Amino acid sequence: MKAEILTIGDELLRGEIVDSNKSYLSDRLLGLDIETQFHTSVRDDPEDMRDAFERAMSRSDVVLVSGGLGPTRDDLTTEVLAETIGRELALDEESLELIRAFFASVGREMSANNEKQAWFPRDAEVLENPIGTAPGFLVEEQGTLVFCMPGVPRELYRMMDEQVLPRITARMEGERLVVRAKFLRTFGIGESSLDAELSDIASGGDVTLGFRTAFPDNHLRPLTRAATAEEADQRLEEVCGQIRDRLGAIVYGEGEDTLQVVVGRELAQRGKTLALAESCTGGLIAEQLTDVPGSSAYFMGGVVAYANEAKQALLGVEPALLAEHGAVSDPVARVMAENARHRFGADLAIATTGISGPGGGTEEKPVGLVYIALASAEGTHSDRFVFPLDRPRHRQLTAHTALDWVRRSLLGFELSGPSLMRRPNAPGER
Amino acid sequence: MKAEILTIGDELLRGEIVDSNKSYLSDRLLGLDIETQFHTSVRDDPEDMRDAFERAMSRSDVVLVSGGLGPTRDDLTTEVLAETIGRELALDEESLELIRAFFASVGREMSANNEKQAWFPRDAEVLENPIGTAPGFLVEEQGTLVFCMPGVPRELYRMMDEQVLPRITARMEGERLVVRAKFLRTFGIGESSLDAELSDIASGGDVTLGFRTAFPDNHLRPLTRAATAEEADQRLEEVCGQIRDRLGAIVYGEGEDTLQVVVGRELAQRGKTLALAESCTGGLIAEQLTDVPGSSAYFMGGVVAYANEAKQALLGVEPALLAEHGAVSDPVARVMAENARHRFGADLAIATTGISGPGGGTEEKPVGLVYIALASAEGTHSDRFVFPLDRPRHRQLTAHTALDWVRRSLLGFELSGPSLMRRPNAPGER
Repeated sequence: MKAEILTIGDELLRGEIVDSNKSYLSDRLLGLDIETQFHTSVRDDPEDMRDAFERAMSRSDVVLVSGGLGPTRDDLTTEVLAETIGRELALDEESLELIRAFFASVGREMSANNEKQAWFPRDAEVLENPIGTAPGFLVEEQGTLVFCMPGVPRELYRMMDEQVLPRITARMEGERLVVRAKFLRTFGIGESSLDAELSDIASGGDVTLGFRTAFPDNHLRPLTRAATAEEADQRLEEVCGQIRDRLGAIVYGEGEDTLQVVVGRELAQRGKTLALAESCTGGLIAEQLTDVPGSSAYFMGGVVAYANEAKQALLGVEPALLAEHGAVSDPVARVMAENARHRFGADLAIATTGISGPGGGTEEKPVGLVYIALASAEGTHSDRFVFPLDRPRHRQLTAHTALDWVRRSLLGFELSGPSLMRRPNAPGER
Repeated sequence: MKAEILTIGDELLRGEIVDSNKSYLSDRLLGLDIETQFHTSVRDDPEDMRDAFERAMSRSDVVLVSGGLGPTRDDLTTEVLAETIGRELALDEESLELIRAFFASVGREMSANNEKQAWFPRDAEVLENPIGTAPGFLVEEQGTLVFCMPGVPRELYRMMDEQVLPRITARMEGERLVVRAKFLRTFGIGESSLDAELSDIASGGDVTLGFRTAFPDNHLRPLTRAATAEEADQRLEEVCGQIRDRLGAIVYGEGEDTLQVVVGRELAQRGKTLALAESCTGGLIAEQLTDVPGSSAYFMGGVVAYANEAKQALLGVEPALLAEHGAVSDPVARVMAENARHRFGADLAIATTGISGPGGGTEEKPVGLVYIALASAEGTHSDRFVFPLDRPRHRQLTAHTALDWVRRSLLGFELSGPSLMRRPNAPGER
């Protein structure tokens, strides 16, 4: 099955926004084992659009279109596509009612030009949009399925998952196997090591193992194919079980569960609380934890102790200790964690102190050096790392390692650091 | 002048990465008043690539290509383009030396397949890559300029600015006017208000005013055209002066100067220091400030006081005050800022306390409510806002408003809040 994606809108071609819809749609197609062959973007220009529609329909089995379904004059997708395939537009009364109801639900009056959004090419199948005014639609023309969706990401994502993917799957099931996929999140080893570690798991023709790097994580997408949904589900369970057995603590979550979500859930389940003492991460760990709604249930707070004076005044680090070992040192990291734990009255506390660069390094303490400490009722664990990364990535990897320690300590895993095996051009870096 | 952009790489079509190169290149072209007509991405597939090259050269005057210049077997751009235009490949000795020197400079040995990167289509003009191994090149074929650049963003950005744009400008100067542009960053009023406020400024044919929304900022790109560079520069100065006069404190920076960079510079210039007491922003302000290298010169640190216990223990907020007014209140915000200022020994301190949602609101204190306070030697200023936004945006806008208060107080401007006039589908939201 050949697929391609076409996004429409002047704003894309002016570079005003980064078009993340295309990568989202391709990623979702890959979940069905369908590779996207082309990405194209054109302006709100009838001639360019017609040209792009014709070309796409001539070479692909599935065309995903996003954008140009709005109520204004420069939203031309429906009109131009209908003309391209030689169909008239027809009013869909049901959609008109839904649009009217949508406006009523948000307490606004429907304006006249929104009626336009209830017109579709004759014989189109309407795709509901429960969270916006622009319904999508599917037309089939000479064996090609053309799905038109709104450009607003959250509306597009939902329509893709709830309306488009099932229709593509149904189409595939007639002729092909059933496909099931999962998304496993890992942290701690590099992509090539993951690949080597799991190479035999995807050796059968019924399993594919996809990799997706999102620094500092590496994610896995195991995918199974079988004659029936039950078999595909069962095989997927089996494969995920094998992966988890093989990788142990490296797999930290599934689907949309970020590390901070997982850490929060494990803390909440145990009724434990967490505090922070951040130096080099500068508030990044706190920011990530509090990004999760409801984090006040387990996150007490933190001190961002950037200056030495702050380490003394707010965290009670003795001037003598700072003078003897320096702010970036194991003893200081440990005291920061222990005192944060006491001052916030938390069960656990983590501390970071390091040199994220670009300046500030010495021969003895180079840029990239960082100490992490985790204090709990059982005592304090600390370690020293050198992460040879630029400032933002150094902070990110330090924050991630520290959060992962919290998860590992709650689940009874060893507190290890990341072993990074980076390729010169890791895919996620582009 | 018709331009289009072609990016090459399997990873793009698998959705593994969001391709931000295209929007960057389009934005830079727009700086020369050139609109991009098409964005296309294809896999590392010779047939698809050939097809895309032919099509692009048949319809555009400038084609910007990114990706596929690496040393591995699946990097095919040079080879396939040469074949498409019927030219042989030739070794460029100078490039080979530069690649060798690049490896020596990072202490690595050049591998045999890197030699491939010194071969170009006959008569190509080589574009230096001082920060990577892949040089770019320009070929001219039947009046179309085809620029090939590496896909690694920082290498691409630099090559675009230093090598590609001057060559396009030179080509345009023969036939067209000289163009100059600036990027002005604004915060505090909405895009439609900016547009209304400045509508007369761009009324002459020699000035264009572009808008770019990047929540919570709105940026302006004034662009001037004239017969000579001097005239275009002078007109640009004039226009920027008019905009600054009109908008006053709303314009906070130029070019790459983010708000945290500007705040840091203003603090450093005056030898002033800053501390934070963050509740609802949860470390976001600290994270933004410390993202800037050298921020330890003016940033003392902060307390993320998420729990009431933390507000008491770390910031000395009296339990009685919390009981009487609640944590989200003006008196608590003021005490947080004042006590942070004293405890960190800083010249200035800002505090935030609010309800970012989605839960936690009451009739009296709805989701979206936030108090911000700024304490200094002159006293404490505080204000109450309701930002009807989702959790991430509520935190972002609160952080931005607080940082902007620091800038405004240092520069002697009034401490006002943002007046947000958002359109239902702001361009930056897509």
